[in-house]
Amino acid sequence: MNTRTELLRDHACLVLHGPDRPGIVAAVTTFITSNKGNILSLDQYSDDANGGAFFQRVVFQRPDLAAAMPELELGLENTLGRFGLEWTLTDQSIPKRMAILASASDHCLLELLWRQRGGELPVTIPMVISNHTNSADDVRTFGVPFFHVPSQGADKSAAEAEIVKLLAGNVDFVVLARYMQILSDSFLENVGVPVINIHHSFLPAFIGAAPYRKAKERGVKLIGATSHYVTKDLDEGPIIEQDVTRVDHTHSAADLQARGAYVEREVLSRAVQWHAEDRVIRQGNQTIVF
Amino acid sequence: MNTRTELLRDHACLVLHGPDRPGIVAAVTTFITSNKGNILSLDQYSDDANGGAFFQRVVFQRPDLAAAMPELELGLENTLGRFGLEWTLTDQSIPKRMAILASASDHCLLELLWRQRGGELPVTIPMVISNHTNSADDVRTFGVPFFHVPSQGADKSAAEAEIVKLLAGNVDFVVLARYMQILSDSFLENVGVPVINIHHSFLPAFIGAAPYRKAKERGVKLIGATSHYVTKDLDEGPIIEQDVTRVDHTHSAADLQARGAYVEREVLSRAVQWHAEDRVIRQGNQTIVF
Amino acid sequence: MNTRTELLRDHACLVLHGPDRPGIVAAVTTFITSNKGNILSLDQYSDDANGGAFFQRVVFQRPDLAAAMPELELGLENTLGRFGLEWTLTDQSIPKRMAILASASDHCLLELLWRQRGGELPVTIPMVISNHTNSADDVRTFGVPFFHVPSQGADKSAAEAEIVKLLAGNVDFVVLARYMQILSDSFLENVGVPVINIHHSFLPAFIGAAPYRKAKERGVKLIGATSHYVTKDLDEGPIIEQDVTRVDHTHSAADLQARGAYVEREVLSRAVQWHAEDRVIRQGNQTIVF
Amino acid sequence: MNTRTELLRDHACLVLHGPDRPGIVAAVTTFITSNKGNILSLDQYSDDANGGAFFQRVVFQRPDLAAAMPELELGLENTLGRFGLEWTLTDQSIPKRMAILASASDHCLLELLWRQRGGELPVTIPMVISNHTNSADDVRTFGVPFFHVPSQGADKSAAEAEIVKLLAGNVDFVVLARYMQILSDSFLENVGVPVINIHHSFLPAFIGAAPYRKAKERGVKLIGATSHYVTKDLDEGPIIEQDVTRVDHTHSAADLQARGAYVEREVLSRAVQWHAEDRVIRQGNQTIVF
Repeated sequence: MNTRTELLRDHACLVLHGPDRPGIVAAVTTFITSNKGNILSLDQYSDDANGGAFFQRVVFQRPDLAAAMPELELGLENTLGRFGLEWTLTDQSIPKRMAILASASDHCLLELLWRQRGGELPVTIPMVISNHTNSADDVRTFGVPFFHVPSQGADKSAAEAEIVKLLAGNVDFVVLARYMQILSDSFLENVGVPVINIHHSFLPAFIGAAPYRKAKERGVKLIGATSHYVTKDLDEGPIIEQDVTRVDHTHSAADLQARGAYVEREVLSRAVQWHAEDRVIRQGNQTIVF
Repeated sequence: MNTRTELLRDHACLVLHGPDRPGIVAAVTTFITSNKGNILSLDQYSDDANGGAFFQRVVFQRPDLAAAMPELELGLENTLGRFGLEWTLTDQSIPKRMAILASASDHCLLELLWRQRGGELPVTIPMVISNHTNSADDVRTFGVPFFHVPSQGADKSAAEAEIVKLLAGNVDFVVLARYMQILSDSFLENVGVPVINIHHSFLPAFIGAAPYRKAKERGVKLIGATSHYVTKDLDEGPIIEQDVTRVDHTHSAADLQARGAYVEREVLSRAVQWHAEDRVIRQGNQTIVF
Repeated sequence: MNTRTELLRDHACLVLHGPDRPGIVAAVTTFITSNKGNILSLDQYSDDANGGAFFQRVVFQRPDLAAAMPELELGLENTLGRFGLEWTLTDQSIPKRMAILASASDHCLLELLWRQRGGELPVTIPMVISNHTNSADDVRTFGVPFFHVPSQGADKSAAEAEIVKLLAGNVDFVVLARYMQILSDSFLENVGVPVINIHHSFLPAFIGAAPYRKAKERGVKLIGATSHYVTKDLDEGPIIEQDVTRVDHTHSAADLQARGAYVEREVLSRAVQWHAEDRVIRQGNQTIVF
Repeated sequence: MNTRTELLRDHACLVLHGPDRPGIVAAVTTFITSNKGNILSLDQYSDDANGGAFFQRVVFQRPDLAAAMPELELGLENTLGRFGLEWTLTDQSIPKRMAILASASDHCLLELLWRQRGGELPVTIPMVISNHTNSADDVRTFGVPFFHVPSQGADKSAAEAEIVKLLAGNVDFVVLARYMQILSDSFLENVGVPVINIHHSFLPAFIGAAPYRKAKERGVKLIGATSHYVTKDLDEGPIIEQDVTRVDHTHSAADLQARGAYVEREVLSRAVQWHAEDRVIRQGNQTIVF
């Protein structure tokens, strides 16, 4: 990560959203410029010209960013307060800490480990937690701690509590890399950071279990995968990314699963990268991806 | 169509399906060869090596095909009878007769008229029936008769009866090119030929009305279209073809509709072509597409 | 176009590019805001954080835009002069005037006429010029003037002169919709407006004549189309858009041509739309597409 | 591989090609049926109805296949001799032996190791040979021998001789998984088995070195990868598979390389699988892929 960190030194990312009002863009860009910032990229979107919501992501370079963060935050509070906007300012040279939860299938897990090692994902991986043990050696080969938290029986609360304890304070977001346990509402509350899932269908088609079998039964000509933020409603959270691949009548449900695996890992990787780069803003049950 | 007819002169297409048994392929190909046929293409599929269903499409050239059809049919009956197969033999130089039913939206309708005129669809179009009048001039420019059958009020039975009367005996299949009326079960029985529909979503997502609005609300990142045979269950018939295109948060529901229109017309055209070329075999609620 | 014109009333589009310097975004957005403009969308791109080129497209709503244009242009000159930027300001409610040049193949021509009629392209079409006559009736059905300018013999200069005379002062850009004549350098100079071409291959593969035949001979598994600005070097101009579709060994060169036709019309339509919406900026032999 | 071996027990694959003549399909299928074979799948293709070339791939199940192979081969010789066809008969339960040659980039190498371990590729991997050492540990983690054969200096003949010696008799085909050395004509002759390459562009665009840099300079909107059989002409061999992914002006040449890596590994994996399953037939400089 040294090269990436060096490339992103003094890069700040400001993400803001709220009610659209005239003058926001000018106010934000003037603030940045007058605070020694050089704008490198700027994306913005208004969902309605006449009084809708406003979304913006600005990346700017600012000398001595680390030292200036408190001062910039204070200034932004003063500048943006009157517009009623929510905002976050992050130092892009600090990678987000990502925990991965997995089960027996390892294709999504290994893809993330691999891309992170190759410097393609701006994250660190403090831990992998699995309810199976088969990936332990592979994970540790990447220099990543592996924790086995079995989840047998009907009552998952002990397992969930153990996972929350491992994660608490150590991670900025969690990825369910084909983690095949349904998490409780209280888990989501207790974990306190965004949770990203990969579902092995083109949602909203084939919600729930066994989507490849259902896809085979329905006779679809494309199968897909969907990465989304996890909410209390199973497979109903805001979609970050989706993609599909073509299949035909010669493919069995097992073939669909094998082909789908490559869509899953690609879709999940994109979603993780975009989240880690602060490109995704949740708006109701939808996402803006800059 | 003269060129196409010439190219396909003496081309026969044999489609068969039924229980898989050893020896079918040998029996069929030996029959064709010993009846002066030269096999041009052969596709086959078995859905289970151990006692499943068998599907085959063979195209062969046979001198003086038109005269020999009765003799070939009799021979096939004798040859295939012991295997318990269903089969159809068609003369590929005779285009199928396709009626189009449409409503106000004309993109799918015009696409079919256009491709037919360009010689890309092996069909004739004896008539277009619409419950709107806006496309009348366009349709007649193509030299195709246009019939207006309004369908107002709750009781559609008179309109359906009129449509059935127009179609009876005159067409080999019917295409619903964004025909926005739900057809009754009795219509499907009375019309007596296959009916192909284009649904403006990636089924089984967004069944029923207003799929683009639903797609916008769900925040999907791809939208699609599905062409399927019409059955008594709305949007549940065997899928012939599907495709998708990428969208993002900047697209309104109206944008989705505009972008989706091009997927609809492409997907419907492919489905119509494959049906007209006897490439599609229905198996339960699925299709084999050779 | 009435609806579109209404929707885009008082919408201005400012496109600028030049050397990247700190403060441009703030200066531009502050100017717009202080001149009663409400920014609706803003895209920007810098090709190098350390002293590269800067590109921006801003759409803003400004009451009484038509009356205020001269005043806005003067103000922009004052504001942007010190940055050394090139810029254009357009009233989005005024559609660009697009001439189409075509030959015998009509798929790209009809696609553009059709989309324009459907309100999907923000252009008017003052004329279609063809060196063939087969499309004359179709074109006039759309209410568009059709001019036949034959181009036989080795010397095309008379034909080119006639085309230039028809276009002069009447159009904002020209589209070569499978116009199969090579235009001279002097034509490009004399016509004086951007010229967009569709090439029936995935450039830079298969430059020049008969790309589908060459694709068949090379045995490629995908074929494509490329829309680009025309420059003096054949098929070498800045690419606006490309796309591909899958083919296999069963497709003849004629099949590739038929399948490719649908990619061509889609790719050309996108390129035309983006150009007409001022989304494309040329930078050397490349394009920025916002 | 045990499961796969079990599934494919007694599965034979017969691939044949040669001049098209009436009666081939009947003769082949009758032979198989009369030799206790049950045809599971059959693909055939004729490149011209009037005297072109004929290609066929048949998979059939035959009890006690291993013992019956000599007898089947003798019978095929007798049956097919009069048609002048070339043919190969393989026992599908015996995986092909695949050597991988790699350099510093490990994405294609690891993808193949990973898919082979997951049972998705019907191959064994007797060895990986690299002119770099960085992947040695990873390769050996998969239980695969790793050999380092440096190739410095202008004269590669010693290195090539060492590679040929390692491969001789031990492998059925060789994959160049981003092996960045140009192999001599004599290497190809001496190695004596098919060699499959992955080129990091959509051939024939960007032949030779640095295709991603060239793609950036040309400003293409899609980048791709091509897997092909290696012949004496660099990047000119018969194409097995290609695919592309979308890029835009914001991507640097390094970004293209990172995004392209995922296309490369997908395209190479498909090509390897199809080759290993005897689905690819070379015909001049083209391929038939069943």
